[in-house]
Amino acid sequence: MDANQKIGHNGNPQTMRPMPQSVRGWKWWANVKDRYFAQIAEHADGFGRASAFPDIERLKKVRIFDTTGRDGMQMPDAFITVAGGITATQNKIDIAVELAKWGIPIIEVGSAMSSPEEKMAIREAKRRVMKLGLPSEIVSLARMNRKDIEEAWGPDVGTDSIHPDIIHLFSSGSDPHTWVKFGKMPKDVIPDIVDSVTYAQQIGFRKMVVSLEDAARTDPKHLVEVASAVNEIAKARGVEVHYNIPDTIGVADPVYMFALISYIHKKVPSLPLQVHCHNDLGRAVDNSLAAIYAGVSEVHATMHGMGERTGNAALEQIVMNLYTRHGVALVDPHQISRISEFIRQRSGVDAPVNAPVIGRNAFRHESGVHGDAVDKSNRMGYGRRKGVDGGSVYAPFNPAVIGRKEEMGIGPLCGRANVEYRLAEFGITVPDDKIADIVEKVKRMSDSAKVSDADFILMAYESVKEKPCEKVRISEIDVWIAMSGARAYVQLGLNGHYRKAGGDGNGPVDAAVEAIKNALGRHSMDIVAYENKSIGQGSDAGARVTVTVKKRRGKIRIESSAVGTDTVLIAVEAFRKGYNAMCALETLRK
Amino acid sequence: MDANQKIGHNGNPQTMRPMPQSVRGWKWWANVKDRYFAQIAEHADGFGRASAFPDIERLKKVRIFDTTGRDGMQMPDAFITVAGGITATQNKIDIAVELAKWGIPIIEVGSAMSSPEEKMAIREAKRRVMKLGLPSEIVSLARMNRKDIEEAWGPDVGTDSIHPDIIHLFSSGSDPHTWVKFGKMPKDVIPDIVDSVTYAQQIGFRKMVVSLEDAARTDPKHLVEVASAVNEIAKARGVEVHYNIPDTIGVADPVYMFALISYIHKKVPSLPLQVHCHNDLGRAVDNSLAAIYAGVSEVHATMHGMGERTGNAALEQIVMNLYTRHGVALVDPHQISRISEFIRQRSGVDAPVNAPVIGRNAFRHESGVHGDAVDKSNRMGYGRRKGVDGGSVYAPFNPAVIGRKEEMGIGPLCGRANVEYRLAEFGITVPDDKIADIVEKVKRMSDSAKVSDADFILMAYESVKEKPCEKVRISEIDVWIAMSGARAYVQLGLNGHYRKAGGDGNGPVDAAVEAIKNALGRHSMDIVAYENKSIGQGSDAGARVTVTVKKRRGKIRIESSAVGTDTVLIAVEAFRKGYNAMCALETLRK
Repeated sequence: MDANQKIGHNGNPQTMRPMPQSVRGWKWWANVKDRYFAQIAEHADGFGRASAFPDIERLKKVRIFDTTGRDGMQMPDAFITVAGGITATQNKIDIAVELAKWGIPIIEVGSAMSSPEEKMAIREAKRRVMKLGLPSEIVSLARMNRKDIEEAWGPDVGTDSIHPDIIHLFSSGSDPHTWVKFGKMPKDVIPDIVDSVTYAQQIGFRKMVVSLEDAARTDPKHLVEVASAVNEIAKARGVEVHYNIPDTIGVADPVYMFALISYIHKKVPSLPLQVHCHNDLGRAVDNSLAAIYAGVSEVHATMHGMGERTGNAALEQIVMNLYTRHGVALVDPHQISRISEFIRQRSGVDAPVNAPVIGRNAFRHESGVHGDAVDKSNRMGYGRRKGVDGGSVYAPFNPAVIGRKEEMGIGPLCGRANVEYRLAEFGITVPDDKIADIVEKVKRMSDSAKVSDADFILMAYESVKEKPCEKVRISEIDVWIAMSGARAYVQLGLNGHYRKAGGDGNGPVDAAVEAIKNALGRHSMDIVAYENKSIGQGSDAGARVTVTVKKRRGKIRIESSAVGTDTVLIAVEAFRKGYNAMCALETLRK
Repeated sequence: MDANQKIGHNGNPQTMRPMPQSVRGWKWWANVKDRYFAQIAEHADGFGRASAFPDIERLKKVRIFDTTGRDGMQMPDAFITVAGGITATQNKIDIAVELAKWGIPIIEVGSAMSSPEEKMAIREAKRRVMKLGLPSEIVSLARMNRKDIEEAWGPDVGTDSIHPDIIHLFSSGSDPHTWVKFGKMPKDVIPDIVDSVTYAQQIGFRKMVVSLEDAARTDPKHLVEVASAVNEIAKARGVEVHYNIPDTIGVADPVYMFALISYIHKKVPSLPLQVHCHNDLGRAVDNSLAAIYAGVSEVHATMHGMGERTGNAALEQIVMNLYTRHGVALVDPHQISRISEFIRQRSGVDAPVNAPVIGRNAFRHESGVHGDAVDKSNRMGYGRRKGVDGGSVYAPFNPAVIGRKEEMGIGPLCGRANVEYRLAEFGITVPDDKIADIVEKVKRMSDSAKVSDADFILMAYESVKEKPCEKVRISEIDVWIAMSGARAYVQLGLNGHYRKAGGDGNGPVDAAVEAIKNALGRHSMDIVAYENKSIGQGSDAGARVTVTVKKRRGKIRIESSAVGTDTVLIAVEAFRKGYNAMCALETLRK
């Protein structure tokens, strides 16, 4: 194959013509953006009014177009390694069904043309959603060529004539995109768009979305030309066409987005609009909201903002912004945390700890100043009287609305209130004059290590009893690993009594913990969560192991962590500390 | 101590009076927000104009107020566990110095009142910045009471009269905040603010920042009253006062923020304004930019958006938005990636993989459609001719500007272009008719596992040579772990020849790898990076181990990963695959 010839976007060999100078290079956008904005500028200044005092009845009708399964899956490493041997395909189907149960009206499951697995996932999701009697519409993505469109519709196999409800047809809008993909300038792509939309209708689709990639960098006049063309087809053929404005590379700002949507809406008022935003400059959610204020009827989003590069607009953030500001719930917010946990498990991608709305830290107060205020506001009757709540002193909405609660943490900047709260959470009462000592201990340890629950309980014990809790001491541990499995032998002191035992496991940590549990007998505890975090580089890198222990018939869970170089010994130490902390806790609660 | 009595914000015991009904509960903000907005609404509609066509000369003068060391540290688990035994305090100092070298004009290092370590960190950072002759100003946070102010100034110890340049005094603005913290309504706090500002000037400070927490939910009229009061002091006493508007709980939107800053600026034009945004609804960066368009002269931010709960406005995102849109660089963007890596190492907190600007995935293309377009645009002379670049087809700015480059990944949705690029990156030439087979192999494996570099190279080898590469086979491995260290014994076949050896290490993986390296002798390879990711729960949880191998005198690095239940055996398998892949690569490149 010639170096200048490649298989093109439409599946045919294509000759590479050099890109026109006017479109070339990183400066192209800098050169055209002011010109593009000038065309739409008159629409920008109503943004303030429209976002402060929107038409609430219209907002309520905005529908979510979820693309977690399709665009979310384009996130590297998403949907590919999940415990339990569930395939990516199966996870995508299950996620689609879960979103449908939640009430998401439109769900893009995948791109039928990309693999037989994708095609199967789309049809299977549709089958299960239908079986449950749910109204959600299932979408397949397709490029604008006949082969892709046929793949999206799929064959009628015997009596099995299940097809996606919507085909999401995408072509390109901006100069460099159309040139790179088709060797044409944008206006020359319009006939292909018209052909594809017509063909999709002919093959059976009654509803379609037409997207022009990189629309945020496309000449607004061209966007309107395409909008008019597809609107004509919609009217002439009685097919439902939605026109999507993707900010494919996340370069828009809310004012540009508001003006652009307003401009297209004014020129082609009968064509329903959608928006699809990426987060390359951290503004996907704002741009989506701006588009909603400007009048789109459907908004694309992914859970956690998963997606290629920096991801898409986060569904949960769009929902909670509209809920917090205007009291409008596009979907029941109370299920956000549960759905988020499901997505984490099934996508294999953990959400950032500080992600808005769904991050582990989102409602966690660790500094003394914040802890003190949250505590006081409770005592004043602001929030709830028991547990950590704090009203809205340090949260923009009541976390109960999404199935969360405020939490109090301890760390280097914590104060009395944080420590008192954590003690109360563990059911420990400590004399008032000991609190300052515990705060001091927490701060001192925090300068060089994380204070786990176990460390905290053991600190409280030491402050109250004026001696450390050393229920279990391990004097000897040996672990053998072979290809057939692992085996451990332990000698330990329990309350000063010597014990020893062995244990087997499917790994060295498992075997070591089994041996310790065998030695401790009926007092034994389980590890219900285990996390290993590497520190540093190379095969001699260090690690922090965090285990969560629980007595077999108990309800209390204690997180315990340790650091070192030998993962197995670190895990054993974390388990030992967790065990001691559980005993210390029982003593302190007596 | 009585349950209704606690140590107050100002250090004195305080009686808890029930909060007034009008201020109480989660609905308070919903009740007042429209009233607050009505006061400032006339300023909102210039937002479009101001953000599209800002005064570029004014933008260039906006200064960054970094608070990574102070507010960033309030992120749970930040700055507390770092390899190499460096304390949190030392890391904060080093980060401040690095930021000063980068050219950040204002650096908040910590809160002197919170611990002796914090106080030391602030003075030491100032000392080192002075010694380097850098102009950066060092800030200490302080509550508005005399004790905190004295702590921030610090004693003159002998000849050591080093003090922070700026004291950042914070009080509260909104009804619930002032009530919870001081048992007063906002207007009754003004005398305390006046007293603190006056005292700070008397004690020696020539420059101060005055912040009212939760300003975004504070009556704009009250914000103006306080602004006028502190402006009077500034004029009367010749002290430089900046007035900061914190959106403490991340509840503002850009239009509200623009209108609020414009309103205050119009009422008290001679008082320089700052903004400090939190990210609870995902809008910290947008709100910061809106404040900049409205006229603040200084903007608070943290690297990576680190901070309490969902964090602060991300410094790198603010910089790159202004750079991309207006060509204004508040600080040299070319160092962003390097500084980001430094912050990761020293804070111990990894940035999310999909974080805008600095995330690992930010410029990575894994889907076939994107890969194909990036590839084509290079061939057309859009981006660079060698390696992955792609011009701006799928990136909002040239990643070289921040010291990054575009990357091509492989995964479940990849296409020919991605595979060809990765092969080219490894210097492998593969007959054209084999490419489809490799794409197929990658997609198939991706449905259930991540394809590492080693897997990819071995797939290419198998496609080309029509047999798998099995240079090294491990027939037996035994590892012993005791408290004194770990030891391993291995039997393996190298090109069919039997070899055996032992090895010691500070952990079982280290020992096992040593044993294998001893058996392989001079062909030996090192592990230069090691990562262990838990999958699932409990002590029998699974894991994925990723190692990066490199020949002792070679330059090529190959990432290799494996999954299973026994971490040690997984690591051995990953290392073995990495070794085989290195050999396969050498054969393929011949």
